[in-house]
Amino acid sequence: MIIRPHLHWFRMLLAWQGSVLPRLLPRLFLIFCISIVAVAAHDHLLPISLNLNTTAPFSLIGIALAVFLGFRNNASYDRWWEARKLWGQLLNESRSLTRQVLTLPSRPMPKEDLREFFNALGALPHALRHQLRHTDPREDLAARLPQALFERVMASRYKPATLMLYLGEWVQRHAQAGAIDPMAVIAFDRNLNGLSDVIGGCERIVSTPLPFAYSVMIHRTVYFFCASLPFGLVDSIGIFTPVFAVFVAYTFMAHEAIASQIEEPFGIDDNDLALHMMSLVTEDAIRDLLGEPALALPNPEAEGYVLN
Amino acid sequence: MIIRPHLHWFRMLLAWQGSVLPRLLPRLFLIFCISIVAVAAHDHLLPISLNLNTTAPFSLIGIALAVFLGFRNNASYDRWWEARKLWGQLLNESRSLTRQVLTLPSRPMPKEDLREFFNALGALPHALRHQLRHTDPREDLAARLPQALFERVMASRYKPATLMLYLGEWVQRHAQAGAIDPMAVIAFDRNLNGLSDVIGGCERIVSTPLPFAYSVMIHRTVYFFCASLPFGLVDSIGIFTPVFAVFVAYTFMAHEAIASQIEEPFGIDDNDLALHMMSLVTEDAIRDLLGEPALALPNPEAEGYVLN
Amino acid sequence: MIIRPHLHWFRMLLAWQGSVLPRLLPRLFLIFCISIVAVAAHDHLLPISLNLNTTAPFSLIGIALAVFLGFRNNASYDRWWEARKLWGQLLNESRSLTRQVLTLPSRPMPKEDLREFFNALGALPHALRHQLRHTDPREDLAARLPQALFERVMASRYKPATLMLYLGEWVQRHAQAGAIDPMAVIAFDRNLNGLSDVIGGCERIVSTPLPFAYSVMIHRTVYFFCASLPFGLVDSIGIFTPVFAVFVAYTFMAHEAIASQIEEPFGIDDNDLALHMMSLVTEDAIRDLLGEPALALPNPEAEGYVLN
Amino acid sequence: MIIRPHLHWFRMLLAWQGSVLPRLLPRLFLIFCISIVAVAAHDHLLPISLNLNTTAPFSLIGIALAVFLGFRNNASYDRWWEARKLWGQLLNESRSLTRQVLTLPSRPMPKEDLREFFNALGALPHALRHQLRHTDPREDLAARLPQALFERVMASRYKPATLMLYLGEWVQRHAQAGAIDPMAVIAFDRNLNGLSDVIGGCERIVSTPLPFAYSVMIHRTVYFFCASLPFGLVDSIGIFTPVFAVFVAYTFMAHEAIASQIEEPFGIDDNDLALHMMSLVTEDAIRDLLGEPALALPNPEAEGYVLN
Amino acid sequence: MIIRPHLHWFRMLLAWQGSVLPRLLPRLFLIFCISIVAVAAHDHLLPISLNLNTTAPFSLIGIALAVFLGFRNNASYDRWWEARKLWGQLLNESRSLTRQVLTLPSRPMPKEDLREFFNALGALPHALRHQLRHTDPREDLAARLPQALFERVMASRYKPATLMLYLGEWVQRHAQAGAIDPMAVIAFDRNLNGLSDVIGGCERIVSTPLPFAYSVMIHRTVYFFCASLPFGLVDSIGIFTPVFAVFVAYTFMAHEAIASQIEEPFGIDDNDLALHMMSLVTEDAIRDLLGEPALALPNPEAEGYVLN
Repeated sequence: MIIRPHLHWFRMLLAWQGSVLPRLLPRLFLIFCISIVAVAAHDHLLPISLNLNTTAPFSLIGIALAVFLGFRNNASYDRWWEARKLWGQLLNESRSLTRQVLTLPSRPMPKEDLREFFNALGALPHALRHQLRHTDPREDLAARLPQALFERVMASRYKPATLMLYLGEWVQRHAQAGAIDPMAVIAFDRNLNGLSDVIGGCERIVSTPLPFAYSVMIHRTVYFFCASLPFGLVDSIGIFTPVFAVFVAYTFMAHEAIASQIEEPFGIDDNDLALHMMSLVTEDAIRDLLGEPALALPNPEAEGYVLN
Repeated sequence: MIIRPHLHWFRMLLAWQGSVLPRLLPRLFLIFCISIVAVAAHDHLLPISLNLNTTAPFSLIGIALAVFLGFRNNASYDRWWEARKLWGQLLNESRSLTRQVLTLPSRPMPKEDLREFFNALGALPHALRHQLRHTDPREDLAARLPQALFERVMASRYKPATLMLYLGEWVQRHAQAGAIDPMAVIAFDRNLNGLSDVIGGCERIVSTPLPFAYSVMIHRTVYFFCASLPFGLVDSIGIFTPVFAVFVAYTFMAHEAIASQIEEPFGIDDNDLALHMMSLVTEDAIRDLLGEPALALPNPEAEGYVLN
Repeated sequence: MIIRPHLHWFRMLLAWQGSVLPRLLPRLFLIFCISIVAVAAHDHLLPISLNLNTTAPFSLIGIALAVFLGFRNNASYDRWWEARKLWGQLLNESRSLTRQVLTLPSRPMPKEDLREFFNALGALPHALRHQLRHTDPREDLAARLPQALFERVMASRYKPATLMLYLGEWVQRHAQAGAIDPMAVIAFDRNLNGLSDVIGGCERIVSTPLPFAYSVMIHRTVYFFCASLPFGLVDSIGIFTPVFAVFVAYTFMAHEAIASQIEEPFGIDDNDLALHMMSLVTEDAIRDLLGEPALALPNPEAEGYVLN
Repeated sequence: MIIRPHLHWFRMLLAWQGSVLPRLLPRLFLIFCISIVAVAAHDHLLPISLNLNTTAPFSLIGIALAVFLGFRNNASYDRWWEARKLWGQLLNESRSLTRQVLTLPSRPMPKEDLREFFNALGALPHALRHQLRHTDPREDLAARLPQALFERVMASRYKPATLMLYLGEWVQRHAQAGAIDPMAVIAFDRNLNGLSDVIGGCERIVSTPLPFAYSVMIHRTVYFFCASLPFGLVDSIGIFTPVFAVFVAYTFMAHEAIASQIEEPFGIDDNDLALHMMSLVTEDAIRDLLGEPALALPNPEAEGYVLN
Repeated sequence: MIIRPHLHWFRMLLAWQGSVLPRLLPRLFLIFCISIVAVAAHDHLLPISLNLNTTAPFSLIGIALAVFLGFRNNASYDRWWEARKLWGQLLNESRSLTRQVLTLPSRPMPKEDLREFFNALGALPHALRHQLRHTDPREDLAARLPQALFERVMASRYKPATLMLYLGEWVQRHAQAGAIDPMAVIAFDRNLNGLSDVIGGCERIVSTPLPFAYSVMIHRTVYFFCASLPFGLVDSIGIFTPVFAVFVAYTFMAHEAIASQIEEPFGIDDNDLALHMMSLVTEDAIRDLLGEPALALPNPEAEGYVLN
């Protein structure tokens, strides 16, 4: 994920990295070529005239498309932002569980028992990230979990949920030993439910894309519109047609492309969520409450990007 | 439900399966024929002129329609996505209840008692799916429930609610036997309330469509607009009228058709929710927490579809 | 409330019952007459020319109006859907309270005590419906409540709230008798709070319409726009003016009319909520959990309507 | 607040009281005068021509403005409706607390102790209203609170919060006396948190207007647009310019004016919330649960207005 | 943050301070110069004609841009308002925790113990503000926290979370001493979870800007549109081009500029949130419940601004 806030207004016009422009260049070049053909046809260099004499139908369809694209953007952005909220809630629940483990037990807990809990809690965002991206969690989990738990988690199909169950078992073990009273068990239970909601919410977003027919239809109409637009513009703006056609095409295609990227917020595109960074920050926040030294994290302000 | 994410932008233009284009072809052909008539009339092949000389009124009505369609899309999509969230919450609550049954009791529960609980919990999504689709739950419930419970559920009118009551009775039975303390009963109660909200939320969506007058009015105006558009376009774009009229009609009709499909998210159209798949995934997630082997599920990434 | 889902696309164009078209016909006829006048004036049958020579100002105002109407629709629909959600929550809370009464007490409750609770719970949706519609609840409450409670409820000004208080007193009575332990009282308390939110939410919607100035202004601008539109169209589309003016007027007036209907969702218009049906369904859902026979309800799928 | 629902569609066109038209008349008259100047200039009565020959730029800016105004309306309406929801929640929490005081204590409470609680609870909406409107609460609080509490509240800076604290102290007092068990204290605590959220939510709305730059910018563009519009219309619609310019100006200015009114929902404009009425209704709802006689409230249906 | 509500409609047209106009003036002057060039080119003062003969393509792109800008505004405003809600919840939770500390303990707490709690609670908003703005919290924390806690907090990386942990430890200490019963611990735990959500929510907003590609694309299209607009207007409105081009540019650029400001609500721009003021108000609200004298706060109504 690229982080470049607070650019000067003029430098922002020229931003390259992190913009979708590089990816769209070949398609915009295609529109440019079509525009050249339209201008040539209009000026009678070609035997038949292709110009449409009017931009009115293009205004109608273009503005209607803008409304539909606006809706689609909205839906895509909502998915992206809900995904971000879920990862934010993961941090919040992790902090709350950390506070509970440190303050709710009725007697001090041995260090190694605490370690067990925090190992599993710190591994959870990594397990979730790998599940959402269909990548191999082996390395990240092996580095954080004791052997027995690691094997159990690797054998399970929904790894974050298994870690959550382990956290519940940990609470049960200490409750039966008398270190956690029944009321405190309820408090833990509430936040474990919260973790369950986070895990399930992320699974929902990743397993249910926007209706496919919808994406296809918007995609098609945007590209057909952009490809035919030069023939509608040429009669009124002549040789300026290539400039304008490419500009309009950029506006519409870029919107469609960004919406496509962010509607799957757990990918590794430039505009997708920085799950790796967020996993590490969550772990670091737990460590901070325990008074442990910081993890080495890249500084997004200084370096202009965050780990994907 | 068709799952085809991450198509290349060019191949997406040609997508056929899962798009609404096949279903709309006859209607678009009708618009094409009307356009031919409009062109013919304009070129004086017909005794009277039908052309309207202007696209201005069509811009007015077309853009207004786009705004109204945009609103309708929004409302339909919200129903679809809320339905998906409810099924996501069903998974979350199922996982939380599984964790609670495994970790909250103050003493280990006999295997067969656990089995009773998880049978009912695993049958609940199937019962809900059949209720929402008005299909026969007999087979799915018979395969999952013990005989007595099966008969009780089949005799009830709201089967998922009866299963939820059974889960409550199970908790009560073990609470009275002293295996579950009063605080833990409250924790169960909270998640059973959650199940109640899921069941009632789905019933609400299925029993209350968008206001009928609204759907009718949008439908009518879209079709009237598309059918009269060729007469408005012919004067300015001549023989290109059929291409453009069909393109605009596709944009508007496809929007209306998709909104119609997703506003009833529990149906079995291509863009409806994959309730069957989600029922099985919920069951599988419970089994995973119990350490049981996986159910055989189709792999949507590999096979391009999920069970409806 | 009219229920007519899944019409064929062509038959939907002709739907009459449940559409707002019948109600709008006289006003559309008025627009038709104005259009005739506009055409006649344009063709010099009248001594002065009334035509405006252009549709441009109408495009401007028409599209702006569409945006404003779109917002108003949204606000009205949100009220309608929130009202529906509140009634859905009423069902959910009723089911949850039923489950709690059946499973939370620490010892079996006598049949007649249960009967008292469920009578009051089943009467609550009816009391709420009559309050929201300002109709007489006497008959419905007399049929469901024991004499003493009936008189107490009839003497109160906010009848559903009084029933909710009675449910709380019932819980207190059995808690003091030792049948319900303090933790379970809290569980009941949570759902009684939920009932309180439902009742108050419905009262809020019914007592606070959309800002009056807003409704008036939209209404006025829509009707002035539709009445003046023929004079703007006549110069460009001539004798087709009546057709188009009526079509545009239908689109705008119908939107405004439907938004007016659904912004007061507790009325008895065709598109208002089926409160009567929902009251009975809630009662029926409670009976189902108790194992009692079904109430006789009209079947909306077969009969095409539900009780208002 | 003016309440005039269910007007006949024709009478609604002529509504005066409660509409923003009276307030806008002088500004609309100004637009009318500008239009006269535009017409005169166009007809060469003035030495220079001011007409712009085209409405196209006005369509562009007018429709863009409509989109921006639509967004602003939305934000303002959300503030207004959230404010209403908070006051609705105040009623709900008051009812729930009333039910709790009447049913949760483990032994009957003396009448005078109950009176203390309900005096403070009934005074809370009045204290909140005066805080939100910066008016003097002395009279309303003196009439409802015992002397000691009255003085304490008057000496505090956030009066509703002080009343909420008093309610908490009341619960504590009776909990320490053994009349309220620890579980019930938690139930009270939950609803007192709810009151805290209501008070803080209202303070948030009143202390944070929409970004000032935003309001200024919309205001400016609307008025500049309306003032220049006649010069754009005069060439195409001639002597009808004054009618249309005033009509368009009414549409835009009225939207802006209503949005300005409702974005500060706690004021005393016609379209602001009826805080006084709602304070009394909340008090009356508490009295009804206690079986006390009704307060004398104006009947909004009969009298067409409610207390501000 | 500038607070200037309730300006007269005419004076609002001329507002300067707090508007984005001053900041945009240089860019608007640039547009003015481009317009002069366009007019000159059109009047054949330049050897080649740059005019485009038509505004139609500009209508198309301008209205589409308005729709996209509308969406972007919406997303930015949602971030701003959610940030404000989080700070409002911070006040609510602080008040609720204050009430709980004062009323939930089963025996009176010593004054110095209370002081410890309220010091940490009052320092929390300041710690959060400095974290969100990357400023040095040393001074504000040193003035509020006892030495030991101050050093511990300064040594931690997430200072507000460390304060929240300290509050939890305080509750634990008094619970173990028997002053707070286990039920009350749960009540505290709920509100500490609430604080956790506030802190994490603010961190989420500050660490995740709108997708960069999105901001860049909107920014680019707005500026390109404004810069080319004069060439599209000059043919139809001639010498009025500079006035109109600047007006349209103001409308679009100001929208984009305000959206850019409020999408990062924790900055110190005029339209950002008044975090400093809100920190002090939260502290003051706690003091008020304790009966302590008021902090000296600037009066926003009188002085027209609040502390940033």
